[in-house]
Amino acid sequence: MEKILASIITIGDELLIGQTVDTNSAWMGRQLNDAGIWVQRRVAVGDDREAIVRALDEEGKLSHIVLITGGLGPTADDITKPVLLGYFGGKLVQDEPTLARLMSFFEARKLPVLERNVAQALVPDSCTVLQNMRGTAPGMWFEKEGKIYVSMPGVPHEMKGLMESEVIPRLQERFTTPTLLHHTLITYGMGESFVAERLTGFEAALPPHIKLAYLPSYGLLKLRLTSVSPGKTSAATEMKTAFDTLRSLLADVAVAEADEPMGVILGKILLEKGLTAGTAESCTGGNIAGQITAVPGSSRYFKGSVVSYANETKMNLLGVKAATLEQYGAVSEQTVREMAEGALKTLNVDCVMAVSGIMGPDGGSGEKPVGTVWIAVGGKNDIRTTLHRFRYDRSRNTDMTVVAAMNELRKWLKL
Amino acid sequence: MEKILASIITIGDELLIGQTVDTNSAWMGRQLNDAGIWVQRRVAVGDDREAIVRALDEEGKLSHIVLITGGLGPTADDITKPVLLGYFGGKLVQDEPTLARLMSFFEARKLPVLERNVAQALVPDSCTVLQNMRGTAPGMWFEKEGKIYVSMPGVPHEMKGLMESEVIPRLQERFTTPTLLHHTLITYGMGESFVAERLTGFEAALPPHIKLAYLPSYGLLKLRLTSVSPGKTSAATEMKTAFDTLRSLLADVAVAEADEPMGVILGKILLEKGLTAGTAESCTGGNIAGQITAVPGSSRYFKGSVVSYANETKMNLLGVKAATLEQYGAVSEQTVREMAEGALKTLNVDCVMAVSGIMGPDGGSGEKPVGTVWIAVGGKNDIRTTLHRFRYDRSRNTDMTVVAAMNELRKWLKL
Repeated sequence: MEKILASIITIGDELLIGQTVDTNSAWMGRQLNDAGIWVQRRVAVGDDREAIVRALDEEGKLSHIVLITGGLGPTADDITKPVLLGYFGGKLVQDEPTLARLMSFFEARKLPVLERNVAQALVPDSCTVLQNMRGTAPGMWFEKEGKIYVSMPGVPHEMKGLMESEVIPRLQERFTTPTLLHHTLITYGMGESFVAERLTGFEAALPPHIKLAYLPSYGLLKLRLTSVSPGKTSAATEMKTAFDTLRSLLADVAVAEADEPMGVILGKILLEKGLTAGTAESCTGGNIAGQITAVPGSSRYFKGSVVSYANETKMNLLGVKAATLEQYGAVSEQTVREMAEGALKTLNVDCVMAVSGIMGPDGGSGEKPVGTVWIAVGGKNDIRTTLHRFRYDRSRNTDMTVVAAMNELRKWLKL
Repeated sequence: MEKILASIITIGDELLIGQTVDTNSAWMGRQLNDAGIWVQRRVAVGDDREAIVRALDEEGKLSHIVLITGGLGPTADDITKPVLLGYFGGKLVQDEPTLARLMSFFEARKLPVLERNVAQALVPDSCTVLQNMRGTAPGMWFEKEGKIYVSMPGVPHEMKGLMESEVIPRLQERFTTPTLLHHTLITYGMGESFVAERLTGFEAALPPHIKLAYLPSYGLLKLRLTSVSPGKTSAATEMKTAFDTLRSLLADVAVAEADEPMGVILGKILLEKGLTAGTAESCTGGNIAGQITAVPGSSRYFKGSVVSYANETKMNLLGVKAATLEQYGAVSEQTVREMAEGALKTLNVDCVMAVSGIMGPDGGSGEKPVGTVWIAVGGKNDIRTTLHRFRYDRSRNTDMTVVAAMNELRKWLKL
């Protein structure tokens, strides 16, 4: 069976000068992959006719499917539509369903409809219009020399709506795709090269259509097995065998058996054990709570958090003693332990994570350099503390601390 | 003066299947842009020899500079180095400074040095080695037919270190670059097409080398002016004139006059006014505090936060009345006002943001659909509440709420 190949073209100067991080492509890559379509290239180009045409030419040669996002807004820097019109031919015609939705969109918001908005309902008659239920710019499906090109807005939730309701179903109808299987094991605490060393024999013995990838992610290491094969049944069995071996080889450092965020992993354990949790955060400033509550339904086990950024707040809300802060400092085993004890009481929860550290760039000292973090986790009369030293910038130190704190609580819960 | 063009190639299957979001390219784009180098294309390809070689060929034809990240790790899926060796020729030799750093790295961590680690010190003798002070894989600078190719590790903080200390300085030495100027005005509360309508005349009157871009971002709209010109002095004056006009045209919706995160904008106002702040967060789960504390030095004005995810926590820590919760519900003007009043007292701060809403996917009702958010901001005896309705998914609703809350406090502070 032929491998179905796709390219993603994202259009916009903001991507090239780094004003916008491209999260669309990653999301699209996951969806296409799940549908058995292999994204082989992603290309970002500016708001420039020649650059867009070159990308269409090149990607059309290499891939069966070319997905294009961006440049469909109502302003002068949005040139994707005229470029596509020139590329695929035809003339602009009004798409009635888009116009009707557009009118009711502005009516509902009691806003006047501008000519530039009405112009968004104009589409090349050389395309099939894909209705965008979440915005004003429609999707456009073109075909040329047996290749498929789909243009979508760059606004993430509009693009996602079009992908889910229109693009993926139409592609699945059009192509017979191989079965792509992924299975990810997440580990913590062992460096990439040491894991690789342990897996040397395992990797050498993998069947040729199963591939192992190493993906370090904020202190976690994700080990992803990918199988590409036409026959469903045998692929699943082989994958299971390979994954079982992988898991047994790394049992001592395994964190999870699926590619899930730490908030989901921790939430499942809390639900299973019927325990409630909370956090007392200094240096992470609410980011642990933020990751826990990013999970729908987290209100079933998460009650809340005290972000005690100031020492005053540590004392007033968590009952940390002034003497402790004075004698040992805010970043110390003693303080973080008292923060945890205070949070257990004041939040009335079964278990907590408490963190205090120095994220940088300022505030470090010889004894406590930037990246020094104390973490306390546990429940009543059973609090465990650990010292961590991260070596990065403020943002990455914070992300690493969030993952480390959740992992410490996970380990405590698993004892 | 010739425009200096760059391409960025990122290597790794994890980018194509969407397991990793490419934040490196955005950061590199900003740095290169600041140095007067225009990134014209960004290409992501998989861990595949043929795909990498094709990208090197293509981008080398189009750009003066080709920056490559990824695929330099110690594991079997890291194939960038052998591919570069084949492409640029030469043989592998040991780089002594890298080997020395590598040995001391493992020694400091009391870890054994594996052969696969030692292999990271092997480099093609056809390259200039760029010392990576933050990791084990060195950077490699190649030249071929007048074009420059630089390979760096994909680990963000290692790549950043190499870019700052080696790549950017060397490129600036090599090329005479034009002056690229950017100036961004941030607005809130007016749709992109309405802003564009108001700016029609302004845009038409811009000099040909100044370009205006519209960048919607979580409810904010960023308007970026970019000037590309060889002569420093006149460019700055023209840019200033254009920006002053832009600002005066959008005075009623302007939020900030630089492309800064909302946390930075708010922090500057608080510092300037000498006020302290805190948050009481339900649906945002600590993310407002997280964005405020992402700013170095935020401890000068931010004391902390109560993340009151459970009603119990709203009552115990913020003093929200049981009767209020019962009569009006957790997502109501009354509740969010009491949360703000409670936070002012318990955190002992001059001003607060309090939010309560329904982020989805569950929990919505006819009267209070998903996306309904109440925000209260203000200080003692002066609390203002606003109702917001977002129409997105959980993650985006949360992000929009964080920005909206910070903007409401900004407006209150500016009164």
